[in-house]
Amino acid sequence: MGSFWICWCLAILINSSLGLSQNRHFYKWEVEYMYWSPDCVEGVVMAINGQFPGPTIRARAGDTLHIELTNKLHTEGVVIHWHGITQKGTPWADGTASISQCVINPGETFVYRFQVDRPGTYFYHGHYGMQRSAGLYGSLIVDVAKGEKEPFHYDGEFNLLLSDWWHSSVHEQGVGLYSKPFRWPGEPKSLLINGRGQYNCSLAAHYSTGSSTSQCKLTRAEQCAPQVLRVLPNKTYRIRVASATALSAFNLAIGNHKMVMVEADGNYVQPFAVDDMDIYSGESYSVLLTTNQAPSNNYWVSVSVRGREPRTPQGLAILNYLPTTASKLPESPPPVAPLWNNYTYSKLFTSKIVALMGSLPPPPTYYRRIVLLNTQNYINGFKKWAVNNISLLLPSTPYLGSIKYGLNGAFEQTSPPDDYPMDYDVMVQASNQNATYGSGVYMLKLNSTVDVILQNANALEKNMSEIHPWHLHGHDFWVLGYGEGKFTAKDDRSFNLKNPPLRNTAVIFPYGWTALRFVADNPGVWAFHCHIEPHLHMGMGAVFAEGVHLVGKIPSEALTCGLTAKMFLNNNNH
Amino acid sequence: MGSFWICWCLAILINSSLGLSQNRHFYKWEVEYMYWSPDCVEGVVMAINGQFPGPTIRARAGDTLHIELTNKLHTEGVVIHWHGITQKGTPWADGTASISQCVINPGETFVYRFQVDRPGTYFYHGHYGMQRSAGLYGSLIVDVAKGEKEPFHYDGEFNLLLSDWWHSSVHEQGVGLYSKPFRWPGEPKSLLINGRGQYNCSLAAHYSTGSSTSQCKLTRAEQCAPQVLRVLPNKTYRIRVASATALSAFNLAIGNHKMVMVEADGNYVQPFAVDDMDIYSGESYSVLLTTNQAPSNNYWVSVSVRGREPRTPQGLAILNYLPTTASKLPESPPPVAPLWNNYTYSKLFTSKIVALMGSLPPPPTYYRRIVLLNTQNYINGFKKWAVNNISLLLPSTPYLGSIKYGLNGAFEQTSPPDDYPMDYDVMVQASNQNATYGSGVYMLKLNSTVDVILQNANALEKNMSEIHPWHLHGHDFWVLGYGEGKFTAKDDRSFNLKNPPLRNTAVIFPYGWTALRFVADNPGVWAFHCHIEPHLHMGMGAVFAEGVHLVGKIPSEALTCGLTAKMFLNNNNH
Repeated sequence: MGSFWICWCLAILINSSLGLSQNRHFYKWEVEYMYWSPDCVEGVVMAINGQFPGPTIRARAGDTLHIELTNKLHTEGVVIHWHGITQKGTPWADGTASISQCVINPGETFVYRFQVDRPGTYFYHGHYGMQRSAGLYGSLIVDVAKGEKEPFHYDGEFNLLLSDWWHSSVHEQGVGLYSKPFRWPGEPKSLLINGRGQYNCSLAAHYSTGSSTSQCKLTRAEQCAPQVLRVLPNKTYRIRVASATALSAFNLAIGNHKMVMVEADGNYVQPFAVDDMDIYSGESYSVLLTTNQAPSNNYWVSVSVRGREPRTPQGLAILNYLPTTASKLPESPPPVAPLWNNYTYSKLFTSKIVALMGSLPPPPTYYRRIVLLNTQNYINGFKKWAVNNISLLLPSTPYLGSIKYGLNGAFEQTSPPDDYPMDYDVMVQASNQNATYGSGVYMLKLNSTVDVILQNANALEKNMSEIHPWHLHGHDFWVLGYGEGKFTAKDDRSFNLKNPPLRNTAVIFPYGWTALRFVADNPGVWAFHCHIEPHLHMGMGAVFAEGVHLVGKIPSEALTCGLTAKMFLNNNNH
Repeated sequence: MGSFWICWCLAILINSSLGLSQNRHFYKWEVEYMYWSPDCVEGVVMAINGQFPGPTIRARAGDTLHIELTNKLHTEGVVIHWHGITQKGTPWADGTASISQCVINPGETFVYRFQVDRPGTYFYHGHYGMQRSAGLYGSLIVDVAKGEKEPFHYDGEFNLLLSDWWHSSVHEQGVGLYSKPFRWPGEPKSLLINGRGQYNCSLAAHYSTGSSTSQCKLTRAEQCAPQVLRVLPNKTYRIRVASATALSAFNLAIGNHKMVMVEADGNYVQPFAVDDMDIYSGESYSVLLTTNQAPSNNYWVSVSVRGREPRTPQGLAILNYLPTTASKLPESPPPVAPLWNNYTYSKLFTSKIVALMGSLPPPPTYYRRIVLLNTQNYINGFKKWAVNNISLLLPSTPYLGSIKYGLNGAFEQTSPPDDYPMDYDVMVQASNQNATYGSGVYMLKLNSTVDVILQNANALEKNMSEIHPWHLHGHDFWVLGYGEGKFTAKDDRSFNLKNPPLRNTAVIFPYGWTALRFVADNPGVWAFHCHIEPHLHMGMGAVFAEGVHLVGKIPSEALTCGLTAKMFLNNNNH
């Protein structure tokens, strides 16, 4: 109780006396397509105000962002999700099509107004169709409130937003995913660091004699010229890393340098040193790097595919020790990533991430436990992903409005199951591979503690089970543990209830389970889904709702579609 | 007055006594993208119920169509325009985004319910962004009412829907058109007859020895196998032709056969024989063909580009005299079209089209004359088309709702000008090439007679003036005449007021003018625009409105966007 009292006092101070953290940031953004060469090959990207990636937002904890987003696309709607921001009190600003708001139609404007209440490394991205894959993303960095301090020191910082890139349009990719026979977009053509990669050449070709790829000849002016991190010797830098990938799991390393992990998804972690780090789509980290290597050299920052058999060259950036020229190539080739399917390595890394000492522990017990079996399935011969045999088919009326106004016809009123059949064998191909479409909602008791057990399984193909990074909107969750095979009640005993990390994204490893716990304390409707864009597009998600009756007045602009629009119109259109 | 009386009596008879023409046709359509090979090259097309082109609608004059259109696209809105149907009493069913209705959002359904009141050869197509170019089109054939007769005889009929096809997506094409520097999609890759063309091979390669294109080896099963018109000797066939092209003007010919023109845009014309016929985008015709040639042969139906320097091979279909096998190639090569820029030839053809003797002549005088200067321009360095120096920028709230409900903020309240500066020289490059965006409306007096003079001019480039086919929604117009250079008051004297053809589409020739007359007798808001899809997308259009206060209750579904939605929501969302 003491801690609540302190917080409350602080809030009073901030709001009425000092006004320290009451900054408002105004942005006017226009989303449109433009030609761009992210990887030296020209294509079409989704841009914000002519920038790709979109502009970086920088604010302090407690500040309010006010983003006027105008859709300048020709025929497509758009929304933007603020990944990692809990949207307390503003669930309509979560930017999820079919869930929090009606999409912004071409020519129209929606104002995202919300508070960034916690410092951390976040990002934003499209959350409609596959618009994230199309390049609609950017960084959102929240500094500690004025007068507050981070629990670690650094002299400077860098920000790396990671993504993967294809040469076919997301429109065509989407058609393939929804086709019978199914057509997979394939592995990415390039990996991008801050929107920059190289497809036709390699920055590191000269290390491998006889390589068929030519050495890149880039000035620094190209759209695909690599990011350069200019550092001074013997300093400590905070490197913020976030992954907006459509598909890929990454391993990031910086040649010759160790990194000290300090933040994950906007939450402090107990610092630990690593040579390289895994990062899955939807995750963000901060690492500290000390520039203690020979200053006459430069070093590679490398990003490699893990978790899927890599068919894409590493993404590279340059750690440039000043006053050495940035164009001097590092002496050694880029770091070699651990083998893509060395999951033991991946799990070891994940196990090291625990909450910073002194962090709030999770509630010791749960009120409700939901076990979500992840399977790949068919529906009428179309390939899908499903959760407890239900492939999420988003309704045309967003849940937030339809639940608030009791429009029961907007989605399936039956809740999806909290568990899957006891006799299901997660280690082998399912005997019945058929699933069904569903749009039901997990209605959570407000302020209750919910456990989610994500259960992985064998996919359609024999001996195949993939990594899925699951992301929860509106909340952080504690990651209580990971395990192999089928989760059983006795696995509770292995939970880390002492210092589990608080995060918004966590993976399930092949054939494994991951246990999450969160408090359903945020009135609204919240997506929970695999952050691999094609997987979500194929139905790999669920919808949670809590306390929607307590949600304030939803802005009209968020309701101008589907049954909410119809309701208001029919009441008045005489 | 007498004719009105008769019509009214007839209506009573039909409605209450005989019920002859009260058929209703119900359709459930789903629009989605699918893979298809229209020209033997696989790409993505817009399909209706898995068909490309969309299903052919066939009804009788007086019938009511009831088309439930569900949008199965992932992120794009959709509408369908029923080209040539006047939508008397149902202006909200005209299917024009930003004008008659809010677009149908993904997952939503809109019911197009309207009467087809006049027999003729029509078609339907997307009218949002460049979705027509993406393949969203199909035929709409209206037969005479039961018991009525066409004023000509035929033994059978065929239906040819013409289009042009690109291998780049319309999304990418659209980005290019809106880019600085401007990027033109270029000439089509293939010409399609009923959605079928050949890109990698030619049906007629074997006639030209040494041709670099190989002879097509197609069975009849391919999606790109040519259309075969199976005929019996010594019969008369009606061939319905409609052009849904995005860009191209066509010349159509049938080897060794003459054609007798009998219908244009759903109106009977005084029959005349031709060897070949021009057809511009948005136009439709019926020709009669007598199978009086050697029955042991087959013959080419050929479609060639005119009006632009052709870079696309002819589109071909086969007139197959039964019992000859369809696979027997015609003895002679396909007809050679008149030179693309022989406009004298084009004008001669156009001049032959006059109304069938006994047709209703136009009103002898006009109430208002609007002169529309067609120019190519720049706005902030972006290439545009403009009318009286205004490039149409469609608003996000459709006019029909915003005018009916007096939402003045929805579009520019100032009407665009009825004329252009007297001293403008249409024969040379403009001294000031800059235009402005506009969304104003030509408000027409209900039931008044309106003349529109379409005035062509030199485009941006020196010695360049293009053909533009202008299409009017909601009405037919009489084409009073065509002329060279700048229209002046004395050109009135050359008007054909005796038997001008009634049409919904008419071209302006390079550096020429075209005079149209229509009666503004259809309460609603109506697009009038160049039917070349990229030209409309670049602003080449105008908006007419008349008697909107008389428009009945607009279906709610047509109002769920922009300011109409906001109005209803703000009144009720407390």
